[in-house]
Amino acid sequence: MSAPDLLARLISSFARLPGVGTKSARRMAYHLLQAPPQDAKEMGELLSEIHEKIRPCPVCRSWTDAELCPVCADPRRDRSVICVVENASDIDSFERGRIFRGLYHVLGGHISPLDGVGPGDLNIASLFERLDGVEEVILATGSSTEGEATALYLDKLLSERGIRVTRLARGIPMGADLEYLDELTLSRAFEARGSL
Amino acid sequence: MSAPDLLARLISSFARLPGVGTKSARRMAYHLLQAPPQDAKEMGELLSEIHEKIRPCPVCRSWTDAELCPVCADPRRDRSVICVVENASDIDSFERGRIFRGLYHVLGGHISPLDGVGPGDLNIASLFERLDGVEEVILATGSSTEGEATALYLDKLLSERGIRVTRLARGIPMGADLEYLDELTLSRAFEARGSL
Repeated sequence: MSAPDLLARLISSFARLPGVGTKSARRMAYHLLQAPPQDAKEMGELLSEIHEKIRPCPVCRSWTDAELCPVCADPRRDRSVICVVENASDIDSFERGRIFRGLYHVLGGHISPLDGVGPGDLNIASLFERLDGVEEVILATGSSTEGEATALYLDKLLSERGIRVTRLARGIPMGADLEYLDELTLSRAFEARGSL
Repeated sequence: MSAPDLLARLISSFARLPGVGTKSARRMAYHLLQAPPQDAKEMGELLSEIHEKIRPCPVCRSWTDAELCPVCADPRRDRSVICVVENASDIDSFERGRIFRGLYHVLGGHISPLDGVGPGDLNIASLFERLDGVEEVILATGSSTEGEATALYLDKLLSERGIRVTRLARGIPMGADLEYLDELTLSRAFEARGSL
């Protein structure tokens, strides 16, 4: 290893990030060495601060650097609908598309007995503490087997409480070529077909 | 934007890295939030330190956190051969393969009149200050037009000084399928063909 020790450590630190291999990590580290020092310094400061300043929102368990997350703190959001997601990052996708004006709830994963994740390991109790005045819960967990199982589990518990429970529609994504779609997606889209 | 401001800033800081788009940057930032705080802290500390502690080696212009880079400081390296590369990161590739036991010299780029980079902008003067006792200079600049032009420029100057100048062989990379190779590589490999 000819790279100085400090640089080698930065490279292996980058290489532990998801989707970053050793080659990309090396490219990133050398880029920062040659870029204005301010770039590395700013990134370093942000990284040192995130765990100090960003905490789960006490209401929805998304991330926040204030008392409440921006969604929970916004008085214009519709408090009668909660959209349940697996991860806080899923919220960004909805918010970027301005798809939804209600509140969110972050489970922190999905039920996965094989990985030892049961309902008690997810933010489910805190969801049930929020149900006063809620008319609809939208289950936006993933379409993996575990995401589906988590949705079924929540559907059962929430329906018992007399709350309207919905699930994001399954079907053919926009712009997709039929020949590249898996059969399960096609069969779900077929079953759920509707008039134009 | 629902992500807290600090997180959004970290995401856009990651997204400025080469080869990292907004989606990967978001994935990296959320990963660090959920990983043990030590990961982000260590990366942050390394980033704050690199520009303070890593400087160009005064001999070869590669990066070092000591007085000399590990290669220049190693008494077992062959001081009669210098391998000239465009970037310090190129050295890693040679060192990982234990391909070469001589010294290196980092030009810091290639001659590129279109980008306003002339010979005076590269570490060429410092190369010529190192030639005492050097018998061979290997030109390992890239095989782009600019890399080739830089090699030709250095070849002329170095040959005038009576030094043996060589260039990395061009040819078919190992494991490559002929049908996917560009014609220039094929024609170079054809010209440079040899007996088995």
